[in-house]
Parts: sequence; structure tokens; C-alpha cells
Amino acid sequence: MPTFAAATRELQLRLGAAVVATDDASRQAAAFDSSKIPFVPVAVIKPRREADIGVALLLANRHRVPVTVRGRGTTLMGSAAPVRGGWVIDMLRLNRIRIDAEAGMAHVQAGAKTADIQRAAEAVGWFYPPDPSSKEYCTIGGNIACNAGGMHGGKYGVTRDFVIALSGFLPTGEAVTWGTATRKFAAGFNLRDLWIGSEGMLGVVTGAVLKLIPQPAARWTLLTAFKDETAALQAALALFRRRVQPAICEFLDRESVHCAEHATGRPVFAGQSDRAVILLELAGSVSEVRELKAEVLAWARQHALASRAARNRTEADELWAVRRKCSGAMFELGDAKLNEDIVVPMRHYVKFVRYLAGLKRRSGLPIPTFGHVADGNLHVNIMYHRGDAAEAKAAEAAVAELMKTVVALGGAISGEHGIGLAKSPFLRVQHSPAQVKAMQAVKQALDPRGILNPGKMFEVFHVWKHERLAIKLPWDHK
Amino acid sequence: MPTFAAATRELQLRLGAAVVATDDASRQAAAFDSSKIPFVPVAVIKPRREADIGVALLLANRHRVPVTVRGRGTTLMGSAAPVRGGWVIDMLRLNRIRIDAEAGMAHVQAGAKTADIQRAAEAVGWFYPPDPSSKEYCTIGGNIACNAGGMHGGKYGVTRDFVIALSGFLPTGEAVTWGTATRKFAAGFNLRDLWIGSEGMLGVVTGAVLKLIPQPAARWTLLTAFKDETAALQAALALFRRRVQPAICEFLDRESVHCAEHATGRPVFAGQSDRAVILLELAGSVSEVRELKAEVLAWARQHALASRAARNRTEADELWAVRRKCSGAMFELGDAKLNEDIVVPMRHYVKFVRYLAGLKRRSGLPIPTFGHVADGNLHVNIMYHRGDAAEAKAAEAAVAELMKTVVALGGAISGEHGIGLAKSPFLRVQHSPAQVKAMQAVKQALDPRGILNPGKMFEVFHVWKHERLAIKLPWDHK
Repeated sequence: MPTFAAATRELQLRLGAAVVATDDASRQAAAFDSSKIPFVPVAVIKPRREADIGVALLLANRHRVPVTVRGRGTTLMGSAAPVRGGWVIDMLRLNRIRIDAEAGMAHVQAGAKTADIQRAAEAVGWFYPPDPSSKEYCTIGGNIACNAGGMHGGKYGVTRDFVIALSGFLPTGEAVTWGTATRKFAAGFNLRDLWIGSEGMLGVVTGAVLKLIPQPAARWTLLTAFKDETAALQAALALFRRRVQPAICEFLDRESVHCAEHATGRPVFAGQSDRAVILLELAGSVSEVRELKAEVLAWARQHALASRAARNRTEADELWAVRRKCSGAMFELGDAKLNEDIVVPMRHYVKFVRYLAGLKRRSGLPIPTFGHVADGNLHVNIMYHRGDAAEAKAAEAAVAELMKTVVALGGAISGEHGIGLAKSPFLRVQHSPAQVKAMQAVKQALDPRGILNPGKMFEVFHVWKHERLAIKLPWDHK
Repeated sequence: MPTFAAATRELQLRLGAAVVATDDASRQAAAFDSSKIPFVPVAVIKPRREADIGVALLLANRHRVPVTVRGRGTTLMGSAAPVRGGWVIDMLRLNRIRIDAEAGMAHVQAGAKTADIQRAAEAVGWFYPPDPSSKEYCTIGGNIACNAGGMHGGKYGVTRDFVIALSGFLPTGEAVTWGTATRKFAAGFNLRDLWIGSEGMLGVVTGAVLKLIPQPAARWTLLTAFKDETAALQAALALFRRRVQPAICEFLDRESVHCAEHATGRPVFAGQSDRAVILLELAGSVSEVRELKAEVLAWARQHALASRAARNRTEADELWAVRRKCSGAMFELGDAKLNEDIVVPMRHYVKFVRYLAGLKRRSGLPIPTFGHVADGNLHVNIMYHRGDAAEAKAAEAAVAELMKTVVALGGAISGEHGIGLAKSPFLRVQHSPAQVKAMQAVKQALDPRGILNPGKMFEVFHVWKHERLAIKLPWDHK
């Protein structure tokens, strides 16, 4: 890959060696994200001021240097991996957070950690709902880049639903602002939302204004057990038909429950071993939660084999700990996991779990599945052993089949992870040639030299053909 | 303007004379929207099937025929006026509505009336909150085109916040779908939101999937009176600081109240004549509204001169009737109105009403102001007499000054109307040259021949220099 030596020297002269690092350690650290396939960049830029980014982009454009922006690199999709080398911009120094408690807004920089934003909001009675499972590590810039979701998606929405305004830079280096710090804006084309979810390919986000909602005064957690997946999902549909919207509503299939039980050495639900479960949380004002609780308990009596309500926050935390453990616990089934965050329309839930049962049989692989049942975003985990060529081939075939099925059911190949490198082989399963052509035309219009996060989304990359680093990241399970 | 005779004949051959009308009456009816400046098209296309639109766009591209899409034409901005002639596509025949009561979604065609969608949702216990004041006339396609808002914006959001997926056609004629009927979607660039608010310039929307929320079981209305505008807005801020989010929170300044009182012949608030008022509605579950009511009454006792709660729906409807009347009542102050739907950040509310008082003095014009105080979207109504050259000039100058001030305060020149023709002189007050250039690059990328709604947004058009039709539309006041 080209070294861009002259351009990098010029950049160092402009921004200083404290901002532009070319040492081996810095470059190796910025070479990979959570997909763990490394591509070593020639320099890592750690801006102290937002304006540094404009300087870098102007130079990058002039010299056609690929530029990849990263926060903490928690993405599993390879979206933050500098696949074409060039420069990496590391946003972690730009991490300011300011809460406007009157307007209910957070003014943040891209490198701010999502959980820090949540805590800052909570300290003054406000709530920022999007909660990717990596929230103690990931940055809001990364959340915006992939339109991150989480468990609160069904009731409250995803990152996009909470972004009021963005500031940053066009790929060509000009500073821009999309939207104002107001809850309404209808002036000109909406490039704000075009940027959200564009995985760092259409612009560099440096700051955002986020919408907050009042912190719920009360929460209540209920664990329910069902005979099997079909019974659990049919029950969930019955709950939604009553127009009850839990703040969180998580489904775990029997295989996921089994893994969690094996890993923790105790049953998820005493007396209900190896059942499919739904774990839900109500949130709202004290009286609202009291009102809904009665309705949810009536629903559980009618549909569940058994249910258990948390009597206090400690008990609730214990129940939620199981949900958090199930993802890591799956590695007893294989040393490799294809975590596919597909989305299925509610009306096809039952058809889909039946399909999954068949896919397990045909592939011979364990496919524990859990996820956010109020928004259809299920995490289908295809487990295999990397060293076993037959298993690896079966996993690859199973993913391809899964993607086609999900789209045929009117669903999406990704609900919250994005495309990056890992899902690039399936973009055209989701999108028609005309749709892909339109997206590429937009890319060409905003980034005529194609310098920003090149090699992603539209170019097909097979992650399973690449060696992964044997490295444990702080947010990895176990 | 060119007649496009050969292209129009070809279109008639393809779609039939029942779909493609070239008679005078049809062309005159499609020549203008609520801005009432007419531009007669050469043909009006009334598609029976969505595919008709693809046929028309392919032909239009080949022959470079301008195409303007319209619903009912309630926009005040000229966004639906065929300023370059050519063909108008009238969407009113495509008006199907289907509610998915389990998933909480509405599947609609672009020509469906907004109020009809609300009623269909309500019939099965769901709620579609966006409520432009023209909702008994306007179509969802038009709402999507301008990202329409309304009184529910502060708590629930605007049209954009409720659009899950769109289907339609690229300007070049290919059918596309953006998003799936699911609450999460993170696959590829987000052209759905790029289309929303693009005022029919980037694609033709034929269908949408809308998110619904559970219908609130209870509502409660309170009218509060204040000494003046500053006192009213300071009180509103105190309410928001308590993190109370009314479903609706409307502010009327003393001049608006005076107009409404004069028009109806009775006080808005008996014993509180000529006061600034805030009219608010709480919505939610029965217990939630009960809980919030106590808090709002405590707030009113502390901040308002007087308050009056509606004891039942009839009394509430009476209170809301006043709010709806104030807009029409203003025509006693002049026969022309520049209704500017600007947005001001909350922290500058008080500064802004003081500025408005100065603007009234300097311009010598009445400027009654009311609006949605929970989202900063205030309707500033500059009233003048069309026949009075000095007043018209003063109004024009006042608008220009207002736009600059709003942007200097960190606000927006439009919160829910869009740009169209009427606000085109101010697009560059809101957006920097780099921002406008990026928008135009996107336009060029998706509509290379510039056929879709040409002459809008980016080209400066002075509505006040054009003769308006002396015509009364069904949704006009009085």
C-alpha cells in the first residue's frame, strides 16, 4: 500500500507530532477494530481541536490519502478498520459533554463515551435511551456512524431518533453544520440523517446535539418462561396487540438459555430450566408503571408457564445479568461466532423461528438466538470452530441463506451494526441495483476523490477469508 | 415556456387520456398551491397505479420535461407550484390506508389524507401524532415532502420521526424502497431521510410505512394567562425545567389574543382580556395524566395570573377553538400575511420576544406571534396591506431582518413549512456556501437532468413581486 510520505510529512508540519503519530505502536493500535482484521495505517491523527480535522481532510484530498475515522473501535463489522491504509483519525480526545437541562439536550463531541453521556443526563433528571451493549466503551461518534441501537429500541428508538444536529466536515474539508439545537428544522435537504448510519463514508462528525427525554421515575422487571420459541414469540405478539410497550423486551431461545445456565452454573429461572424466556422492563412514572404492571401480570398468567418479578433493583440487576452473559457464554459451542443482527417484521416471527430450526438442522451448527423482540432485531449467532473447515463452510453458507430469507420476509440484514466489511457481501441482497447506484452517486457527489473510509459497504470483502488477530479487547466477553 | 408536445403525446399514448389530462380546467387547477402564484403546466398526470409514475419519469428524463408532484397543494411555500411548467403528477388517487394493529404501523399511499390516517389508527387504539393545521386536507406525501410538524412536535416529534420506510421512484424513473417495515434498519446509506423534507426534488414518494404509538387514554387541557410575553415564556421554561412534557403547549402573544377576541366577540379568558396565554394539553394513561396534572397546577399557581382547566372534552374543544381561530382572525390587521414558521432555541425565548417588540416598532407593522412553545417553532405573522407600497416594503424588510436574527440566535428559518419558492431568498442565511454546495451536489447526483421540481430551494424567487390569484381555498381561514 502507498506510504503517502510527502503528504504525511506535510500533515505533521501543520499539526505537530503530538497530533500526528507515525510510530509503530500508534499505527498498530489503530490498525483494527473489534472485527480484529488488521490493516496498518501510515499515520494516526489525534486531533486536539475540531479544526485539525479540516486541515487533514484538505491535505488528504489533495494527495488522495485514504482517511478512516475511529472512536473506540468496538464495531464488529470492520467499519473502523483502515482497509486501504492511509490515515486514521482517532476522535477520543474530542470528548466534551454538556447537558442543557432546560431544553433537554446534550451537546457532545464525537469522542464522548455513550455511557458517560447517559450518566451526565441522568445526573440532572434526563435520559438518553440508545444503549448499545458496548456503551461503557463505545463513542457517540461511532453510534452515529452506524446508527447504533440496543435494548431500548422498541419503545424509544435508536441513535437516529435522538440526534437533533450534527457538526463536522465534508470529505473535501469544509466545516458544516446540519440542523440547529432545536426540536424542529425544515430548511434544506436533510444531510444530517444522510450522515447518520453512513459509517464514516460521507463526512466526519465532530459534534452532535442529542435529544433527551425525562428520566423514568420507576422501573419494573419481569422474567417469563415459555415452552419453546414459538410460544414465547406468540406471547410477545399478544402483549404488543394490547398496545403495551415495555421499555425493554428481550427474548432468549432455549439454546441461549442453556449456554447461560451452563456458563453460570445455575438456572436462569429456577424450576424452568432450558425454557425459552422473555425478560421485560417497564419504565415510566410511578403510577404509569403500576398501571401497566397489572396488565403485564395478567398477560403472563395467560401466556407464560411461569413468571418472576424482581422485588427490588438488586433482583432486577440479577435478572439482567443473565441476559448480558448469554452472548459470551455461547463460546462453549464454538470458538467463532457470526453475530447477525438481522431484523424480522413481527408478523413473520413464528415463521422465522421455524426457519431457524431448519437452518440449525441443515447446517449442523448451533445457532443460539436472542434479541430485541419489540423491534424485530434478533441476534442470530452462528457458532462454529474456526479450525474446522467443514464447519466454517457450513457457517458461511448458513449466513448467506439467512440473509436471503430475512430479506424475503420483508426484513433487514442489519438492525444496528451496519455493513462495513463484514456485511458487504449481502448489501445487494437488501438493495436493488438502482438503490445501490443511488447510494454510490451520493458518495461520489460528496466525496469525489473517494478518500473517506474507502473499501467499505459497496466493495465485497469476505471477512472469513482473512486471518484475525488473537487478541482480547476490553469489551470482549469473558 | 416549452410545450413538450411530442413527449406529452407519447405519455398520453402510454398511460391513456384518463390518466394524462391536458384540458384547460385540469391544467389551471394544478397551476398553483396555497401560495396562489400560478404557473400553468402542459399536462396533469393522475396515476391509477404507482408504476404509472415510473413511466412518466422515464419519459420526462428522456425529453427533459420538468415534473412537479402535488398532493392537495396546501403548502404556503410554493413547493407544489410548477414554476417551470412541464408536467404535474397529482397523487390524490393513490390514497390507500392499512393499519397493522399488531406492529403499530400504518401502510399508506402518498395521496392519503393525514386526518384519515389518524382516524384509521385511532379506530384500533393507535395514534399518529404529527398534526399540521391543514390535516383535514393535506396528504401524507406532502407532509413527508416538507417534513410537516404541528402542535404535537415538542413531545412526540414531527413527520420524520414517524416514517419507517418509503417506496417510490428515483428522478430517473427506477422504483426504489428505503427501509423495511421494521423499527430498526441499518443497512446502507439512509436515503429515506434524505427524501423526507427534500420537497419533491430528490425522488417521488408513492408509499410510506408510518410508526404509530398507543393512543393516550386520557387528555387534560389547561388555559393560563400571563401579564405579557416575557412572563409567559419564562413560565414555559420553568415548566420544562421540571421535565414536564405536555402533549401540546401553545403560546399566543397579546396581539394574537386580541385578534381572536375581536373576531369572536368574546374574551379568550374571561376576566383576563388582552393577556398573553399558554394553552396546554397533557396526554397519557389515566394515572399518568392525574400525576402530571397536580404538578402543572402547582406550576400555574406559581407562575400564571390565572388558569382555567377544561372540565370535560366540550370545554377543552372550546379552548382549542380559540387557538385555531387566531390565525384567521389576524386578517383584520392587514389583507396580507407573511407567516414565518421560524424556530428559536429555548434559551433565547425572552431575548427573541424583546427583539420582536423592537421589530414591530421599527417596521410599524403588527406582528402577532403564536406557536409551539415546547419545540421553539413560533409562527411570526407579519401583517400588511398588499395595496400599500410602503407597508409591503416594510414587511419585506422585516422578514429579511427576522431571518437573520433567528439564525444569529442559533435557530432555523423554517420549522415545518420548508423552503419552496417563498423562503428561497433566505436559504443562504441558514446554510453556508459549503452546505448549499453539498446539497446541490446531492441533487445533481440523484437528478442529473434536474427534472424534479426545478426552480425551487436553491434559485432565489421573490414571491412578493408576483401577482397572487384572488381565490379562496377550502382550507383558507374565514
